[in-house]
Amino acid sequence: MKLKVVATLVYRFDHETPVIVAIEPARSPDQTIVSEQLLIDQPAELIRDLDADTGMRRFRGVLSGQVSIQYQGTIDNGTRRLLHADARQHAWAELPAEVLPYLLPSRFCPSDNLMRFAQREFSDIEAGGAKVLAVVDWLQEHVDYIHGVSNAQTTAEQTFIDRAGVCRDFSHLAIALCRALNLPARAVSVYAADLAPPDFHAVFEVYLDGQWWLVDPTRLAPVDGMVRIAAGRDAADIAFLTSGNFCQCLNQWVEVSRMEDSEPAQAA
Amino acid sequence: MKLKVVATLVYRFDHETPVIVAIEPARSPDQTIVSEQLLIDQPAELIRDLDADTGMRRFRGVLSGQVSIQYQGTIDNGTRRLLHADARQHAWAELPAEVLPYLLPSRFCPSDNLMRFAQREFSDIEAGGAKVLAVVDWLQEHVDYIHGVSNAQTTAEQTFIDRAGVCRDFSHLAIALCRALNLPARAVSVYAADLAPPDFHAVFEVYLDGQWWLVDPTRLAPVDGMVRIAAGRDAADIAFLTSGNFCQCLNQWVEVSRMEDSEPAQAA
Amino acid sequence: MKLKVVATLVYRFDHETPVIVAIEPARSPDQTIVSEQLLIDQPAELIRDLDADTGMRRFRGVLSGQVSIQYQGTIDNGTRRLLHADARQHAWAELPAEVLPYLLPSRFCPSDNLMRFAQREFSDIEAGGAKVLAVVDWLQEHVDYIHGVSNAQTTAEQTFIDRAGVCRDFSHLAIALCRALNLPARAVSVYAADLAPPDFHAVFEVYLDGQWWLVDPTRLAPVDGMVRIAAGRDAADIAFLTSGNFCQCLNQWVEVSRMEDSEPAQAA
Amino acid sequence: MKLKVVATLVYRFDHETPVIVAIEPARSPDQTIVSEQLLIDQPAELIRDLDADTGMRRFRGVLSGQVSIQYQGTIDNGTRRLLHADARQHAWAELPAEVLPYLLPSRFCPSDNLMRFAQREFSDIEAGGAKVLAVVDWLQEHVDYIHGVSNAQTTAEQTFIDRAGVCRDFSHLAIALCRALNLPARAVSVYAADLAPPDFHAVFEVYLDGQWWLVDPTRLAPVDGMVRIAAGRDAADIAFLTSGNFCQCLNQWVEVSRMEDSEPAQAA
Repeated sequence: MKLKVVATLVYRFDHETPVIVAIEPARSPDQTIVSEQLLIDQPAELIRDLDADTGMRRFRGVLSGQVSIQYQGTIDNGTRRLLHADARQHAWAELPAEVLPYLLPSRFCPSDNLMRFAQREFSDIEAGGAKVLAVVDWLQEHVDYIHGVSNAQTTAEQTFIDRAGVCRDFSHLAIALCRALNLPARAVSVYAADLAPPDFHAVFEVYLDGQWWLVDPTRLAPVDGMVRIAAGRDAADIAFLTSGNFCQCLNQWVEVSRMEDSEPAQAA
Repeated sequence: MKLKVVATLVYRFDHETPVIVAIEPARSPDQTIVSEQLLIDQPAELIRDLDADTGMRRFRGVLSGQVSIQYQGTIDNGTRRLLHADARQHAWAELPAEVLPYLLPSRFCPSDNLMRFAQREFSDIEAGGAKVLAVVDWLQEHVDYIHGVSNAQTTAEQTFIDRAGVCRDFSHLAIALCRALNLPARAVSVYAADLAPPDFHAVFEVYLDGQWWLVDPTRLAPVDGMVRIAAGRDAADIAFLTSGNFCQCLNQWVEVSRMEDSEPAQAA
Repeated sequence: MKLKVVATLVYRFDHETPVIVAIEPARSPDQTIVSEQLLIDQPAELIRDLDADTGMRRFRGVLSGQVSIQYQGTIDNGTRRLLHADARQHAWAELPAEVLPYLLPSRFCPSDNLMRFAQREFSDIEAGGAKVLAVVDWLQEHVDYIHGVSNAQTTAEQTFIDRAGVCRDFSHLAIALCRALNLPARAVSVYAADLAPPDFHAVFEVYLDGQWWLVDPTRLAPVDGMVRIAAGRDAADIAFLTSGNFCQCLNQWVEVSRMEDSEPAQAA
Repeated sequence: MKLKVVATLVYRFDHETPVIVAIEPARSPDQTIVSEQLLIDQPAELIRDLDADTGMRRFRGVLSGQVSIQYQGTIDNGTRRLLHADARQHAWAELPAEVLPYLLPSRFCPSDNLMRFAQREFSDIEAGGAKVLAVVDWLQEHVDYIHGVSNAQTTAEQTFIDRAGVCRDFSHLAIALCRALNLPARAVSVYAADLAPPDFHAVFEVYLDGQWWLVDPTRLAPVDGMVRIAAGRDAADIAFLTSGNFCQCLNQWVEVSRMEDSEPAQAA
């Protein structure tokens, strides 16, 4: 499926501030970037990084004053397979070495502390895809999607207590529970069609059967309408903008639209 | 300098448990492994991983019951340069991409929360090596080296409040303060000669002037007597043993001794 | 000095909800209530409580739907003495029993964890009033008054890390540091003249020389223009409104004005 | 039932240190102190406090060096009624004013954060005693009694995550859940017959049907064999020993034995 994405960030920087920005879709095997453009309304020399493991792209620069950063692109995300109950769980010994970090607790996903709960709650479920689907079912049943309960510092532990949060919190708790069950899991930022209201979206993916599978634990947007941006251990790794000094987000907009099959010109 | 290391871990696993073990010295440019041996008193099929970025070695296996793991090795750690005040701080744009993750907050080093303090306390110090040395001086003056105040869950924030901790806590707080000052910093586990009592030791390193510099914020052991084991964002990444189920450490011993220059036979 | 206070709270309760409200000035020796009126735009049977120790008044009732609660009063707060450096610190053995709870750590003022810092930082200062004034000086120098860094869950520990907060945070950290120095201290909510913008204000008081002394660690409002409302261990005890179910604060206004001495009619 | 209690605390104080000690049984309507003796192996002038609300007794003094404090007593705890499912829950408006503080969140029992969980989990259970018994059943089913997971800083939130703890943790979580359900609940320290191994024990009580009811959420000791010591919001209020400086507990022993009815001499 082809998707058109327009994302705009407006920030204010009181001083000359180094930033790292991750809003460009990843160069990963599950999607093709048909065309794209990055616009910054201020002259800035940019360094561009590509992460070999995840395909995540980031650019670095030094910004000051009020700055608008816009990404526009057309992405073909192919045909994404939905996680199914039979997807096989690997023994640790079988995992590729680059997958191992996603077994470990991280700042917002302190999975070690949730081990006792996870093992008690999910031990009866068959290993693999079924266990991950059970984790998502549990989230749907026990956690409310509510704005205002959590913030950018909220951990999976706090969401486990609060029983409420937004997409970031649902993903963090899903990741923490998966890792507590010895399943490699990581945070993924995406552009998602059909999300209302449109916004950056946080989901997660698990490694089963030799591949990563995208899952939306909020069930607010279909996986086949998602464009992958960045992947990492948790939200700390995949921030849209990381800055070396205090800064203020003045505004951000995201538009994602599915493109008609009858638009061959743009895909050419 | 040549150093002889013997490290022994004894663990109990109630069930068949997957583990990842990082006790072998890193294959890094600053040290040469002259000879070594890994002994496990239980038949175990091991997978061996080598991290391209840090040279960290880990092995994976499945263990059960009471198990003793012993590493013996002779390592030549060459001539390590001590961090000096003039080591130049890089702009973010100059950093190698693989260094960027060490600018970010992590679980035990939530540097974002300490930004205001760090900038207020250290803004008058010149950038680069001088700033790192000022951070270590601050730790020496404001934090007591005391056992029993902290535990394996203690973060740099808690140590900043408690004003007390052990080597792991000193390193975490040093790392958090460096990152809050836009300096890439990471946790390093080492074998250290002259440490009393002998034990695994936690230090940190900063990236300045195009290289990583080892620093011991506790000042309990000289950097030139250290053998590097693992490096990562914080203690979560460089645990000696990560297990997929509850387990119990029954005992651990470490011996590190400087070898006489008059022992050429062993180095041959 | 005579002060006129008008305070209005507007809340929404989705269900019939029991509430405890503390917005009426305390009946304490340091102030006289000249005249007052409580208005609730909904018929509600109220229970009225008076705390013998602090003079704090609270009313209880069951509310539902959108409710406006208004307090209007004229209060004469006499002549409040300002804390001076020579105010004598009591040994624990000399303290009245009802003062003892204010030596203990509490939810937002976990003074036990700050003991090491407090003793290191303030040990050279003479005991008593001078020590409290040194704590307030330290806050002025090391903590920024900034909105948006803290929230209703923020503890004195977090403010000690963040080095930023609002009146509630300044008071919590001041209280925690005083208790860590064996000085009884408690949180006080007040109406404050000359506060810009007008709002409920949080300050603290310490027990020295046989009496409680009001102190504003933010230095945003003069102590002689304050009307005392409630006192307790920390913000949890002196909330304007405690509810037995989720509710939403739609709005709140506070007006406090100094009355001319030439207005004898109103005081009659 | 008559119970004989011997409790011994041995502490070391490096400096002259003010302390508050709560190891004497409460003077409460549900128990009679037949005979008792307090022994301190160091001359110390003691101040004695009696809390009018809870009957809790405490003594204050200044101690230094190594000190042994021993309490010996014979207590008749009458016939304690066990909490039953029909005990009626009061509306907030009906509660005595002195019970209100036990509705509020406190340091180790932050009930506000557990409101969503508590209401979701226990909303179907009838109000009153049945709800409290359901909370205790839930604890028995979902939390493991294990030493070493928690420490003196552990909150009910952490125990809710860890799903493991000791008597103090069980009580804190039970209290937090009760308060989240609008039930007044408080922490109680007791001497308990039949506890193995003998030790100080932490339980809780709820206010229903016009009285406080003792409940042991660990189910490790029978309520009719308990001697009440102190009651408060949580463990911070009922510590055996609160000190104004760092100190070290060297040892503590507790012996509690049921006395034969055929021992009238001792009760005389």
